[in-house]
Amino acid sequence: MSYSFLQLCEEPRIMSKPLILVTNDDGITAPGIRNLVEAVSSLGEVIVVAPDQPQSGQGHAITIEQPIKLHKVDVFDGIQSYRCSGTPVDCVKLAKNVLLKDRHIDLCVSGINHGSNSSINIIYSGTMSAAMEASLEGIDSIGFSLCDYGFDADFSAAKYYAHKISSKVLERPFGACQLINVNIPKGSFEEIKGIKICRQAKGRWIEEFQESEDPRGQKYYWLTGRFVNDDEGEDNDQNALKNGYISIVPAHHDLTHYPSIPQLKHLEDVS
Amino acid sequence: MSYSFLQLCEEPRIMSKPLILVTNDDGITAPGIRNLVEAVSSLGEVIVVAPDQPQSGQGHAITIEQPIKLHKVDVFDGIQSYRCSGTPVDCVKLAKNVLLKDRHIDLCVSGINHGSNSSINIIYSGTMSAAMEASLEGIDSIGFSLCDYGFDADFSAAKYYAHKISSKVLERPFGACQLINVNIPKGSFEEIKGIKICRQAKGRWIEEFQESEDPRGQKYYWLTGRFVNDDEGEDNDQNALKNGYISIVPAHHDLTHYPSIPQLKHLEDVS
Repeated sequence: MSYSFLQLCEEPRIMSKPLILVTNDDGITAPGIRNLVEAVSSLGEVIVVAPDQPQSGQGHAITIEQPIKLHKVDVFDGIQSYRCSGTPVDCVKLAKNVLLKDRHIDLCVSGINHGSNSSINIIYSGTMSAAMEASLEGIDSIGFSLCDYGFDADFSAAKYYAHKISSKVLERPFGACQLINVNIPKGSFEEIKGIKICRQAKGRWIEEFQESEDPRGQKYYWLTGRFVNDDEGEDNDQNALKNGYISIVPAHHDLTHYPSIPQLKHLEDVS
Repeated sequence: MSYSFLQLCEEPRIMSKPLILVTNDDGITAPGIRNLVEAVSSLGEVIVVAPDQPQSGQGHAITIEQPIKLHKVDVFDGIQSYRCSGTPVDCVKLAKNVLLKDRHIDLCVSGINHGSNSSINIIYSGTMSAAMEASLEGIDSIGFSLCDYGFDADFSAAKYYAHKISSKVLERPFGACQLINVNIPKGSFEEIKGIKICRQAKGRWIEEFQESEDPRGQKYYWLTGRFVNDDEGEDNDQNALKNGYISIVPAHHDLTHYPSIPQLKHLEDVS
């Protein structure tokens, strides 16, 4: 196959209106997803499938023990939208396999999350897991998060960059890796210094369960904690954010720790 | 610090009775966890913290929107055990930060899962996410899964190898990576050909939602599907299992796709 033929094959896809799937984990009524829909609506045909209630911290959970409901809603002007009773990953599975069956999805954008998904937060995040699920299906995917947990957070810079980055990815699709984790620092547009392509920082949570008693006198625990970053490298996402940059981490789902394969050969001798 | 001093420092840990945390995602009453408790009970002091109901497919979900309950139970003879209302990851967080606060946990074992967690299943699996959570805390961790979904599955070979592998890891703790994903093929002890250290196969699920209507006439979807493995490499876990071997994949939580960092530099120019 000649290069010119490949060019001809690819051109119609570039020229046609891209199909963009939007989802999140804060629920379909969150300000973050409204800003994301507005950010990408001029870039193609948009369909929204998002949880009907907040699903933060759902990680890569899927609903297998019960049925999932999907309801068409009219919350974004002129945009086909559905609220889903399942997890963020369920939303992507239903969009891909039920609503958009047989259609090529050019891009999946997830967010804009209310709060950071940098460093180790990627593995707890429903926003990032939804984007990862789309990437598993071969769809270029972006998770956007604003490092501000407030409901009234200022999304103007995040929205601007979500538009710009999504547009750039549509123009030049990803290669080997089909997922990026984009975190935008809290603050005004003018405060953002630029964008850095990073690796995931080696951060961790120090858990401090709040312990109390319910009205029947039964003890309960409520998860809380604080994030610490022990990673002093300059090339990690936490460092970029700390210095006022948007961080972009290319991510994937192969969890193999390759350097350990030769080191664990002695375990083959168990008998 | 001289080598002999290091030896002296390490010896007491090797000689003392190891502390082993046991968890799973099928719930504290599942046959798989009973077999795992029996497999490791002779290796050290065992504490069990497991979900009070099945939590398959919970991935790395954590409970942040509601409190978690923890109840002491007497289900394993002479073993300190707790049922937890949270997810598998919650179980590990509570064990580490509430029940075993300030104590060094030598090993976390999760499972034995009823069904395979090879290939991409690692990211959906509560069993593997619990083990990963422990590894995040610096604890050597093993997820065990038997490739048989039946409640009456024959766990005898899985139990034997869970004992042997756990014992070997306690004798010689992991290095750079602190998590392994162990899958045991279905079948009798005699049918198992051996153990292979592998990489995660590039498999995927083809989703086929079952569509139906509830008693009120509302449409619902129930997730189902079939797993396909397009990975023809001989060094992956699916291939090992297909050929009758136990697969061990060293795994980690750094999701960065390093080769893509230089390839995405053009995204830094967005403005």
